[in-house]
Amino acid sequence: MLKNFFNPRSIAVIGASAEKKKLGYTILRNIINYGFSGKVYPINLKTKKIQGLKAYPSVKAVPKKIDLAIIVIPAKFVNQVLKECGEKKVENVIVISAGFKEVGGQGKELEKELQKIARKYQINLLGPNCLGLLDSTIKLNASFAEGMIKSGEVAFMSQSGAICSAMLDWAQEKRFGFSRFISLGNKAGVNENDLIEFFINDKKTKVVLAYLEGFFDGQKFLNLARKLSAKKPLIILKSGKTQVAKKAISSHTGSLAGSYSAVKAAFEQTNTVVAENLTDLFNLIKLFSRDYKIKNNQVAVVANAGGPAVLTTDSIAESDLRLADLTKETKDKLTKDLPFSAGINNPVDVIGDADADRYELALKTVLNDKNVGSAITILTPQTVTEVEKTAKVIIQQSKQTQKPILTSFIGGSKVRKGIELLSKNKIPHYLYPETAVHGLQKYYSYQKCKGKKQPPAKINIAEKNKIKVKKILAKADKTVDFLSAEKILKSYDIPVINSGLAQSGKQAGEIAQKLKFPVAMKVISRDILHKSDVGGVKIGLKTKAEVEEVYAEIIKNCQKNKPKAEITGVLIQPLFKGRELIFGLKRDPQFGPLLMFGLGGVYVEVLKDVSFGLAPLSRQQAENMIKKIKTYKLLTGVRGEKAVNLKSIVSTILKLSQLAMDFSEIKELDINPALVNEQGLKAVDMRILID
Amino acid sequence: MLKNFFNPRSIAVIGASAEKKKLGYTILRNIINYGFSGKVYPINLKTKKIQGLKAYPSVKAVPKKIDLAIIVIPAKFVNQVLKECGEKKVENVIVISAGFKEVGGQGKELEKELQKIARKYQINLLGPNCLGLLDSTIKLNASFAEGMIKSGEVAFMSQSGAICSAMLDWAQEKRFGFSRFISLGNKAGVNENDLIEFFINDKKTKVVLAYLEGFFDGQKFLNLARKLSAKKPLIILKSGKTQVAKKAISSHTGSLAGSYSAVKAAFEQTNTVVAENLTDLFNLIKLFSRDYKIKNNQVAVVANAGGPAVLTTDSIAESDLRLADLTKETKDKLTKDLPFSAGINNPVDVIGDADADRYELALKTVLNDKNVGSAITILTPQTVTEVEKTAKVIIQQSKQTQKPILTSFIGGSKVRKGIELLSKNKIPHYLYPETAVHGLQKYYSYQKCKGKKQPPAKINIAEKNKIKVKKILAKADKTVDFLSAEKILKSYDIPVINSGLAQSGKQAGEIAQKLKFPVAMKVISRDILHKSDVGGVKIGLKTKAEVEEVYAEIIKNCQKNKPKAEITGVLIQPLFKGRELIFGLKRDPQFGPLLMFGLGGVYVEVLKDVSFGLAPLSRQQAENMIKKIKTYKLLTGVRGEKAVNLKSIVSTILKLSQLAMDFSEIKELDINPALVNEQGLKAVDMRILID
Repeated sequence: MLKNFFNPRSIAVIGASAEKKKLGYTILRNIINYGFSGKVYPINLKTKKIQGLKAYPSVKAVPKKIDLAIIVIPAKFVNQVLKECGEKKVENVIVISAGFKEVGGQGKELEKELQKIARKYQINLLGPNCLGLLDSTIKLNASFAEGMIKSGEVAFMSQSGAICSAMLDWAQEKRFGFSRFISLGNKAGVNENDLIEFFINDKKTKVVLAYLEGFFDGQKFLNLARKLSAKKPLIILKSGKTQVAKKAISSHTGSLAGSYSAVKAAFEQTNTVVAENLTDLFNLIKLFSRDYKIKNNQVAVVANAGGPAVLTTDSIAESDLRLADLTKETKDKLTKDLPFSAGINNPVDVIGDADADRYELALKTVLNDKNVGSAITILTPQTVTEVEKTAKVIIQQSKQTQKPILTSFIGGSKVRKGIELLSKNKIPHYLYPETAVHGLQKYYSYQKCKGKKQPPAKINIAEKNKIKVKKILAKADKTVDFLSAEKILKSYDIPVINSGLAQSGKQAGEIAQKLKFPVAMKVISRDILHKSDVGGVKIGLKTKAEVEEVYAEIIKNCQKNKPKAEITGVLIQPLFKGRELIFGLKRDPQFGPLLMFGLGGVYVEVLKDVSFGLAPLSRQQAENMIKKIKTYKLLTGVRGEKAVNLKSIVSTILKLSQLAMDFSEIKELDINPALVNEQGLKAVDMRILID
Repeated sequence: MLKNFFNPRSIAVIGASAEKKKLGYTILRNIINYGFSGKVYPINLKTKKIQGLKAYPSVKAVPKKIDLAIIVIPAKFVNQVLKECGEKKVENVIVISAGFKEVGGQGKELEKELQKIARKYQINLLGPNCLGLLDSTIKLNASFAEGMIKSGEVAFMSQSGAICSAMLDWAQEKRFGFSRFISLGNKAGVNENDLIEFFINDKKTKVVLAYLEGFFDGQKFLNLARKLSAKKPLIILKSGKTQVAKKAISSHTGSLAGSYSAVKAAFEQTNTVVAENLTDLFNLIKLFSRDYKIKNNQVAVVANAGGPAVLTTDSIAESDLRLADLTKETKDKLTKDLPFSAGINNPVDVIGDADADRYELALKTVLNDKNVGSAITILTPQTVTEVEKTAKVIIQQSKQTQKPILTSFIGGSKVRKGIELLSKNKIPHYLYPETAVHGLQKYYSYQKCKGKKQPPAKINIAEKNKIKVKKILAKADKTVDFLSAEKILKSYDIPVINSGLAQSGKQAGEIAQKLKFPVAMKVISRDILHKSDVGGVKIGLKTKAEVEEVYAEIIKNCQKNKPKAEITGVLIQPLFKGRELIFGLKRDPQFGPLLMFGLGGVYVEVLKDVSFGLAPLSRQQAENMIKKIKTYKLLTGVRGEKAVNLKSIVSTILKLSQLAMDFSEIKELDINPALVNEQGLKAVDMRILID
C-alpha cells in the first residue's frame, strides 16, 4: 500500500513559497536541492513561479498526475485542500501543518474531518503535525529539516519531530546513513504499523528504528513486528513508561500510552529490541546496522590496560554474556606472540606499551578461536599507543571476520581521530566499554531468537463446551457468579477444586462428609467480593458437627456485616495442600488479552513478583512466564521439597490464553488462589468480570 | 604526613636522561617545562648535564636538601637507590619503575624489600609501577604523561595508570581542571587512605575522585572516607565487583578485591558517591565539581520538545527525584509569557520554535519557584533554535542561582558549539537527559546526607557479661556449642527462646510440662550441624507422653544416621509464633565485621533478600538495614496483620554490632531463625564460629 508513497515520480508542494522564512520555502528548496529526479509542482494561489519552477493555483490545475502532495498551509485550510487532492486522485499526502489533535478543542475536530476525507479518497496520509520525510534511495528531502541524510540501510520513524531533528544532526556528524527517515506526527493516517508492514519487504532497509509514544493498534503491531523482526531487527524506544510521563504525552501528541507491562510483553514476544533511553537508541544503531554472525555469548576482550579490562569484565559478569574460554592453542599463541608481562587469559592485556602490531596479533588470534563469538577492543592513550594505526588494524580485522568487533577508545583528543576512523568504517565504537557490553548483549539476544517461530499453542476445547461458556457469559451481568465462573474454567479443562454448595447447615454437613475432612467453607454471594473481610470464610473444619455449626456462623457474620447481600449459599471445599498461585487476565487497551502469572499471597502482594504475556501464547512463551518470576525456584523445589507439577501450570496458562482469545467479552479474570503440588493444580477461588 | 609530598621545593630525578625515548627524559622535561619553580636535580651516573641542568651521580652528591625524589630506573636497581635517598634524608619518593609485585615472583620480593627500606627511613613512597603525579597548584608535572592539567578543584587518584591517561586526555579536551592528579601504582607506600586523609584539609581540593581496584585497609578507609565526605564529595569507581573480575585484578596489580556486599555497605555508610562505571565517573565529576545548594528532590524540566521531555519524565519517575510541583504563580507567569500551545505544567514545553529569550523566560520563572530544587534544560536543534544564545542564557541564569541547572543539548554538529560553551562555563552537560537525571539523583542524595553524623549506637553490656563471653570463647574450639552460643546471646541481652535440655525421655517430659505445650524438640550435638537432615527435630508436640516418646525417637534417628555423633541431649522449646528472621555476622577481609539481616526461610534462600551493614552501626544505619530489604512490608503488616516489633529487630542488630566489635575472635555468627511477632523477638537457633 505504501509502495508509491516511497517512490513518487511527481510531487506537489501545496503552500510552496518564495519567502525564505516560510516552511513552504524550505520544503520546496529541499526537494529541489538534494537531487530528486521527478517532477515538482509548487502550488500557490498568488504566484506564477517559485524558485524557478512554474507554480499552479491548485493541484487540480496541474495537468499531469501527482504521486505525492505535501501540504504546508495553515490548519484551517488543510481539509479543503486535501479534498482537492482526493479529487485529483493524489494517492499520497504529507500534512506538515500543525494545529490539529495536539492543540485539542477545535484541532481535534479538524483532525477527525481530515481522517474522514483521507479515508473517503483512499489517501495515504502522513501527519499532520510532522516534519515530513527523507529518503536517500531517491534523494528526496520532503521535510523542512536542513541537510540531507546519507545513504544507509537503517530506516527511522519517530513520533517526535524533535527527536527527528536531533537524530538528523547526530547522523550528519557521525556520517551515519539512513534508507528512509519518517516523522510520524499525529498518525492520523499512516502509522507505525503501516510502515513496519512496508519495511518487511523493503529491500533498501535492513534495520528499523522507531521512537514511539503510543501504539496505534497493538494487536496489529504484534503481528507485524513479529514478521519484521524475523527478517531484520526492529529497535524501539518507547516513552511514557510511567503514569507521570503518561500525562506529559497526552499534552504532547495526544496519543495514549499503554500499560508498560503489556508493552514489555509485546516487545519480548515479537523479539523487538528495546532501546531503554536515548543513549541506548543511539548506541544500538551502530551495532545493529551491521550484519554480523554471532554464534555464542562468549566475548574476548583485548585491552592495553588492566583497569578498563577489569571494568569490562564486571559489566560482562552482570550481563548474559560471558568471557570467552580461550582454547589452549590460542593461549599458547598469545604466550608466544605477546611480551612476558602481558595477560594471556581473557581479558587479554596487551599492556601499556602495545603498538598497533601487537593489537593485531592479539585480536587476530582471539578472533580465530572457535570459542569466541565476539570481541571488544579497548584502547587508552598511553605513551607509545598508536591510536590511528590501531584503529586501522581493527578495521582490517573486521573485514576478515563475521564476528562482531566492538571498540572503546577511552580519552579525549588523543583518541579522537581513531574514533573517527572507526566510525567512518562502521566499526561500532563506544565512549566506554560498559556501553559496548550492553549493546552486544542486546545484539546477541536478538540474533539468538531471530526467526524462531512461536506459533500459538493448540488447545482443543470441545465445541459444546464453548457453547456452554458462551451461554453463561450471555446471561451474566458484569460479574460472573462463582459457580458460573467455576463452570467456565471446567469447560476449558482447568482443574477446579472439588466442592459442593450448601444452602443449610444440614446440607453443609452432608456435603462435607462426602468430600474429605478437613474442609474449608466460604460464603457465595455476588454481593460479597472480599469474603474474609465479612467473616465469610472458615478453614480447617474437621467434623460434621463443626461444619453445621460454622454454616450458621458464616451466615450470621454475613448478615451482620453485609445486611443487604443476597447469599447463594456456602461452598464446601476439601483441603488441597500446595503452593498458592495466581493467574490473571486483563484486556490491555492496546495489546488486548494480557495474561499474568505469579506465586500468590505475599509474593504477589508485597513483592509484586508476577510475569506477563499476551495471548495467544506459544507453549514456550507460557513456560517463560513461569521461569521469569523471581520465585521460580520455589516451584522447582527448595529445601529438599519436590518440584510442583509445572506442566499443569503451563497448561493452565495456555487454556486461559485460549479462553481469552475465544471470548473477548471476558474483561478480567482472576484465579486467586490456585494451589499446585507434585500431582497437579486446582483452582480454588476465581472471579470473572465481563464487559 | 603528606604535606611536604605535595609541596616540594626541590626535586631529584633519579634516572634522568638525555635520550628522548626514555621515561627519565620525559619526566625531567615535564618537570622543567610546566613551570615548577623549585630546584631540579637530574641524577645520572654517566652524564654531567641533562636538559641544561647540572647532573649528579647520586642523590648523595647533591649538596642541598632534596624534598622529593623520582626514581625511574630498572626495578633491580631501585632498592639500592631508595636506600641512598633514605640516607640523604629525602622524605618523599615516587617510584615510577615497574617490575615489582605486579609481575609476581622475584618482583614480589623486590617490593617487600622496597617497603622495608621506606619504613626504615620513614619515606613517603608513591608507587612503584605508577605514572607519577601532577599538581596544578605548584605547576608540577612529575609524571611521564604528556601535557599539563589545568587548574581546578578536583583531586584524582587512580590505581590504574591507563585510567589516568584516559582521564588526562579527556580533561584536556573538555578543559576540565584538577588540583592534584595521582597515579597510585602498586600502593607499596602511599595508598588511598593516606591521600584521603590529606585531602580532608587540603584547601586546594573540593572534590575527591578515585578509581580503586582494592582497599589497602578497609576499616581505616571507613573512618577517613566518613570524615572526608562530611566536608567534600568522595566519588569512587571500584572495579572487581564480580568473582571473574577478581581474577583479572590479581593478574593486574596483585591487589585483592573485597567482597562487594561489604564495599557497598562501606560506601553507603560513609556517604561515598558510587560511580557505577566509567560513563558514570566522567559524568559525575561535571556535576560534583560544582558547589550547588539543592534543597529538595523536585526537578523542573524545560524543553523545546515533547519527546525528550517525556523521556526525561520517565527517568525521573524511576529515580528518587520527582517532577517539581510548580506553584500557581509560576504557572500563571508561564501562561502569560509563553505561547498558547506551550506546556506550562512541568515538564515545561517551550515548543519547537522557542528562541533563547523564551528559554530565558521559562528557566528564570521555574528557578524562582520555591518548590523547585533543580532544573534540567533540554534542547533539540530545530529550525529556529538559537543554540549558542540559549547556552548563554543558561550560563547567565546559572550565575543568578545556587540551584543546579543541568543541560542536555541533543544532536550533533548543530549543538556542538552550544555544548562547548556550556562546558567552558562549567554548566554540567549530558549527551542525553537520562544521564543528567542519574547524576542529579546522586548529587541530591549525597547532599542530603552530607555532614549528618552517624555515631555508633551506645549499647551497654555489663562488664561481668563481657567476661562471661570472653571465657566461653576462650574455651571453644572453632564451633561454639549451642548452649554456649545461647549464653553468649543472652549475655548481650538478645532474647533467646526459653528452653531446657533433656538428657532422658523422662526429663524431656518434665521440661516440656514446665514450658508450655506445644513444644519443639531438637537434638543438641556439636557433631550434628543440620539437625533436620538426621531426624533430629520434631515440632508441635502436645503432650508429655508424646514428648517422652519422641525423645527416644530422636536419639534413635541420630544414632542411626550419625553413629559417631556425641549427643549432648535434646532441647525442648515452647512454640513461639512469628515471622522467621535471619541475622548474620561475617568478618570481611577488608572492612571487618559485616552484619547481615533478612527474612528467613525462602526469602533468604530463594530471593536472597538480605541487607548488609558494617559494625559499629548507628541506630539509623541499623534501621536502614531493615528498611532496605524488599520484604520490609511483611514486617510492617500486610493483609491486615499487625506490624511486628521493629524495635526488637533494631536492637538485636545493634547488640550483634556491639558483640562483633567487642570480640574479634568471633569469625561468623548466624541466628537462623529468630522469630518476631508484635510483642518481640526470640532467637531460636544460632551458630557461632571462632578463629
